[in-house]
Amino acid sequence: MKDFFQVQNLAAILKRREMFAVVATEQVPLTSAVERILARPAVADVDLPGFPRSTMDGYALAAADTYGASESNPAYFQVIGSVAMGETPAQQTGSGQTLRIATGGMLPAGCDSVVMVEHTEHLDETTIEVYQSVAPGQHLVAADEDFARDTAILEAGRRLRPQEVGLMAAIGQDPVTVYRRPLVGVISTGDEIVGVDTRPAPGQIRDVNSYTLASLIHTAGGESRLYGIVKDSFQDLRERCVQALGACDMVLISGGSSVGQRDYTIKVLQSLGGSEILAHGVTISPGKPTILARVAGKSIWGLPGHVTSAMVVFDALVRPFLQWVGGRRNALTQKARVKARLSRNVASVPGRVDFIRVRLVKTAEGLKAEPILGKSGLLRTMVEADGIIEIDINSEGLDKNTNVTVYIF
Amino acid sequence: MKDFFQVQNLAAILKRREMFAVVATEQVPLTSAVERILARPAVADVDLPGFPRSTMDGYALAAADTYGASESNPAYFQVIGSVAMGETPAQQTGSGQTLRIATGGMLPAGCDSVVMVEHTEHLDETTIEVYQSVAPGQHLVAADEDFARDTAILEAGRRLRPQEVGLMAAIGQDPVTVYRRPLVGVISTGDEIVGVDTRPAPGQIRDVNSYTLASLIHTAGGESRLYGIVKDSFQDLRERCVQALGACDMVLISGGSSVGQRDYTIKVLQSLGGSEILAHGVTISPGKPTILARVAGKSIWGLPGHVTSAMVVFDALVRPFLQWVGGRRNALTQKARVKARLSRNVASVPGRVDFIRVRLVKTAEGLKAEPILGKSGLLRTMVEADGIIEIDINSEGLDKNTNVTVYIF
Repeated sequence: MKDFFQVQNLAAILKRREMFAVVATEQVPLTSAVERILARPAVADVDLPGFPRSTMDGYALAAADTYGASESNPAYFQVIGSVAMGETPAQQTGSGQTLRIATGGMLPAGCDSVVMVEHTEHLDETTIEVYQSVAPGQHLVAADEDFARDTAILEAGRRLRPQEVGLMAAIGQDPVTVYRRPLVGVISTGDEIVGVDTRPAPGQIRDVNSYTLASLIHTAGGESRLYGIVKDSFQDLRERCVQALGACDMVLISGGSSVGQRDYTIKVLQSLGGSEILAHGVTISPGKPTILARVAGKSIWGLPGHVTSAMVVFDALVRPFLQWVGGRRNALTQKARVKARLSRNVASVPGRVDFIRVRLVKTAEGLKAEPILGKSGLLRTMVEADGIIEIDINSEGLDKNTNVTVYIF
Repeated sequence: MKDFFQVQNLAAILKRREMFAVVATEQVPLTSAVERILARPAVADVDLPGFPRSTMDGYALAAADTYGASESNPAYFQVIGSVAMGETPAQQTGSGQTLRIATGGMLPAGCDSVVMVEHTEHLDETTIEVYQSVAPGQHLVAADEDFARDTAILEAGRRLRPQEVGLMAAIGQDPVTVYRRPLVGVISTGDEIVGVDTRPAPGQIRDVNSYTLASLIHTAGGESRLYGIVKDSFQDLRERCVQALGACDMVLISGGSSVGQRDYTIKVLQSLGGSEILAHGVTISPGKPTILARVAGKSIWGLPGHVTSAMVVFDALVRPFLQWVGGRRNALTQKARVKARLSRNVASVPGRVDFIRVRLVKTAEGLKAEPILGKSGLLRTMVEADGIIEIDINSEGLDKNTNVTVYIF
């Protein structure tokens, strides 16, 4: 198409994300920290667990006193008490003595190991037989074995999973400093687009793209703000872009699938003060007409009008940029994926990356990926799709039964 | 262990989820609907797209007028105008006539197809040559081709992905009726547990489990409410359970990893009016000491004290129950997963399902799953883990290089 002047490949555009600054930080309660991006390295304020801690229900004792013990030749111990949970044991053991201890209890002085209750038997109130020898350190965790005090245990830029939130609890970090969710403005364009609350007249369709994009932004860790529908007018679109750029960290212009609408978008982006067009055309399919500009340090995107294409571009490009701006560093995407075998041949054009929507079908021979070949623009095709496969830029297509990776929607 | 009286396997417990009622519904703005569970079937209020719609930039015409057209023998058309976006075309075409049309435009009367602009050339202001014949219906979507009016297009119980939210926009459903997020109460028990805001004394550890569980609840589509830390007291635990059951849709009791604490939990659950113990012991590892009871139609769980074990039980059991109660029906879990080869032999005990945490390592031979064999209770092991593998109940273990499915955390 003759009117693209800055066609770029996917990898080249992805590198540009480092031109964009990361959002500010905020503090959130630890109960709301999951899936947020840690903004400061987490440092242990204490040794963890902080004391020698039993990992079993049993008896705390000196390992040396058990050496040689067996079913036929048990060792005998005097039970002098039990360890209270949550306290430093009041008693200490001497040779041949033991204290009952529960999982999580602190080892008393004089003990270096725990024998499991299953390997003991009571002879009387204060005497047990031990049927197995234990090694020093057995069935316990040393005071700093999990994490030592003052060590950095999570780096900044990491997305907090439930277990990382648990770790933050262990080191007393509540609230926790995370990056703000990037705010992304969404502008829908096109004379044929009407609001969701409007019954479309012939020739009109409701604004599907704004809501699909708002949802994608949410799944990428951002917050969305809808700037409504702009008719095909240079001045209106320009004003709306200025407004959105003033308030948001990133702006998506959606629609403009016709040549005329695309012209408006690129002209508006060129007209914004200090704007730099980083890409005008991308070697992917669908998604070729994508535009990326930088204005006042923020990225502003012109996305294809077909929502099915806009979704592909979002996942391939906008999501990694959004995660970058949101401070995420440990993985740029983390999409679910499965392996499957292609149910039919799929053609591809070398020189671009092709993204093909597929349906997953369980068969006797394993999971099959069935390409969904409906007409572009049909919502049905994206609702029926379970995921997408990517065909390499140098490939002329994939044969039936090829093993493919399906990225789950 | 002698004190379990209702040991169940995983599949048997999972079936019990149907004993529990689904939460009520609520209305949310469509911009907040992603990842929520649809509570009413979605029915199209209009045909979609609602009019014959061009999928290309080009010319609308009667296909029959192009038959036989080729590079060497073009067909000629009189351009009588262009289709305005968002409107019913004012003009209709006669034989040999055409209208310019953009992607998304409505086909005028007299036309049954679109020829792409790339296959045409302008001779003068009002005449084009067409170099390719088109078939009726080509490059357009019929008025009800996507979805026909009054048909159900999404079933209740479906989790809304971005594309389903887009579809709801297309049929004008804003707000949308979804199931409430189930509210899950979390009670932490144990004399050794102190709050995250407390510097633990020797023998004490901070309350990791409440925060890990709250985060897991969030990732499963629920909302959490923390009921704090209960010391090992029958009466206190019972009161806290009554309080949580009164307000929440489900209750998790965490901690109680020692025999004594487990005894409290089961006794408290037995003492609650009308309670039924559905499981006391599960044939999985870790996670054997899990308890499930039904009280006043709600599920209340006793989870293992080691947070690493509690996470496994959450994913294997609590998550499917929570999703069920939250109305989700289209999939009970949707965890990301990858295939990898096991880096070493792993032993397993037949008669239980073993869950092994693994780290994923990229190697020249593909992805390797390295079992993480740290002591139970070490937070480090779960932070280092990328996912988990499941070893079948009948298996005695897996050999090195076995292909395994890793469920990503």
